[in-house]
Amino acid sequence: MSLTELEIITLIREMAGEPGPGVEVAIGDDAALFHFTGGRVLLTTDSIYEGVHFSLDTFNLSDVGWKAVAAGISDIAAMGGEPSCILLSLAYGRAPESEEVRALIGGVLEMSSSCNCALVGGDVCRSGAGLALTVTVAGTPSQGGPVLRGGANEGDRIGVTGALGGSGAGLFILNNRDDDLRARFPELVESHLRPRPRIQAGRLLAAAGVTAMEDVSDGLAPDLYHICAESEVGCEVEAELVPLSDELLALAGEVGAEPLSWALEGGEDYELIFTAHPGHFNKAINALALHGITAARIGTIKAAGAGCTLLTETGRTDLGGIGYDHFA
Amino acid sequence: MSLTELEIITLIREMAGEPGPGVEVAIGDDAALFHFTGGRVLLTTDSIYEGVHFSLDTFNLSDVGWKAVAAGISDIAAMGGEPSCILLSLAYGRAPESEEVRALIGGVLEMSSSCNCALVGGDVCRSGAGLALTVTVAGTPSQGGPVLRGGANEGDRIGVTGALGGSGAGLFILNNRDDDLRARFPELVESHLRPRPRIQAGRLLAAAGVTAMEDVSDGLAPDLYHICAESEVGCEVEAELVPLSDELLALAGEVGAEPLSWALEGGEDYELIFTAHPGHFNKAINALALHGITAARIGTIKAAGAGCTLLTETGRTDLGGIGYDHFA
Repeated sequence: MSLTELEIITLIREMAGEPGPGVEVAIGDDAALFHFTGGRVLLTTDSIYEGVHFSLDTFNLSDVGWKAVAAGISDIAAMGGEPSCILLSLAYGRAPESEEVRALIGGVLEMSSSCNCALVGGDVCRSGAGLALTVTVAGTPSQGGPVLRGGANEGDRIGVTGALGGSGAGLFILNNRDDDLRARFPELVESHLRPRPRIQAGRLLAAAGVTAMEDVSDGLAPDLYHICAESEVGCEVEAELVPLSDELLALAGEVGAEPLSWALEGGEDYELIFTAHPGHFNKAINALALHGITAARIGTIKAAGAGCTLLTETGRTDLGGIGYDHFA
Repeated sequence: MSLTELEIITLIREMAGEPGPGVEVAIGDDAALFHFTGGRVLLTTDSIYEGVHFSLDTFNLSDVGWKAVAAGISDIAAMGGEPSCILLSLAYGRAPESEEVRALIGGVLEMSSSCNCALVGGDVCRSGAGLALTVTVAGTPSQGGPVLRGGANEGDRIGVTGALGGSGAGLFILNNRDDDLRARFPELVESHLRPRPRIQAGRLLAAAGVTAMEDVSDGLAPDLYHICAESEVGCEVEAELVPLSDELLALAGEVGAEPLSWALEGGEDYELIFTAHPGHFNKAINALALHGITAARIGTIKAAGAGCTLLTETGRTDLGGIGYDHFA
């Protein structure tokens, strides 16, 4: 049986349970009230739309809920901050069944509670077409203040956490509806459906004094390009240094794809790109390693005039104009 | 010429201008950073979808931007708070023209700046269908703390600011595409297209010690019903006390409509409903009057067992189940 708006809100409130520390007013009023120690609050909002960001042929509802929240929390991680609470604006094209709401909100809460982040409010309405979610995340900056995109300097080293392109490769498998590949490359599919924001890495990198940071949401090329644009610098990335997983390389070999393009253009890896003064770079890498987080140097920040380039065996490519733009 | 995602963001950033007080990081990074004195932050989010909440046949783009922001700010007003900053998640079904973005963001900024509220961040993407906006508003509660929905007590008087039903009547005119009515009842059309959140009234009512408060977004009946449900009380509203404007009564007479139903079910008036102990009610009304804000007593809070009823010349009607629910 499908639910009314009021029944959906009642169910979400019931699933969210008792509010945790900091929450003074939770779901059920005109606005939520949260107490942020210190008063400096990071705020970010991100929407995902059925048919644009996900398809219900390849995502189950709990993956959708998980991913919408993970993407928002990743923006807080990319500033070196801690997520505190989230708001969810949820729109359905038609009245949902109770189990559909349970599955979606189950994914939302699974992700958010794994980050100690409370669901404190939101909105439920009808959309013009399919399912749509907007997640707002409020968080607390690290003591040293947030790490911005605009702080990179000429000579800084460029690093990334983990491996890139897994999400793009996972999407390739999902779009091909290939159950065999899906069974054989579960890590790649998982990195597309259930990315894990790098909160701890962001905090460690902020403490290690990195100069600029951003999460990989659009792809290494456009995201690094954002850092260079905001910092008014150029960069040089060495293609062979970009970390790619063994699974990704195996899949690329098997299907005849260019593995690097998943990293450059695929996006949605939610790893962190960061820049650091050469004298601090190894300290940053070591701080991560102490917590079992791998990271690699992929290039160097250059003067603005040098542009943003990728160095491959065969020459140089411009990093500008590569990667996902919703309207390009 | 249509804009890319990056060009849309650049244009919005340019239009938003220099960040005001409290804004430490504005548009252009992974998240915004705002400094809230005191650290207690009100948070709310609301979405509007083309074809559901508005039609571009009757709204111009700047009205859409205005109304999306006004609805969010009204939630802060309904807690007795002050809005501080907003985030906008903006989705287009197709790549927009520069003038289309300018018009929409013009409306967003016109409304938000009239409330001293800065646009500090957001998101731009493609939607599954038409235009969609999600506005998140962060604000500061009043010194006495926020006024919640759950504080009404048996015997409290129920008041509302301004007049109700104007937005519903305005929508009636717009939906009938009647240029003559539109020219003759501009106030009604304006209250639908460009509602003004009651920030000052909310603050004055909070200071006057009202026990519960909510804004009229779904209609007097469901919104008052929310207060009663959260407060675990009943209520009795006297139909003849519900404030209706002369314009609304004139239109209803002319088109043969029931004027009260616009007030009960129309919604989107963004006036405030409040409850106060009988000994404080006149103080609250007088505090508003001193600032030129009209308000009226419309009924009384009853014991839970009494239900939520509307008293008319012909008898009693249940207020439950009346009013807009997206999936009812």
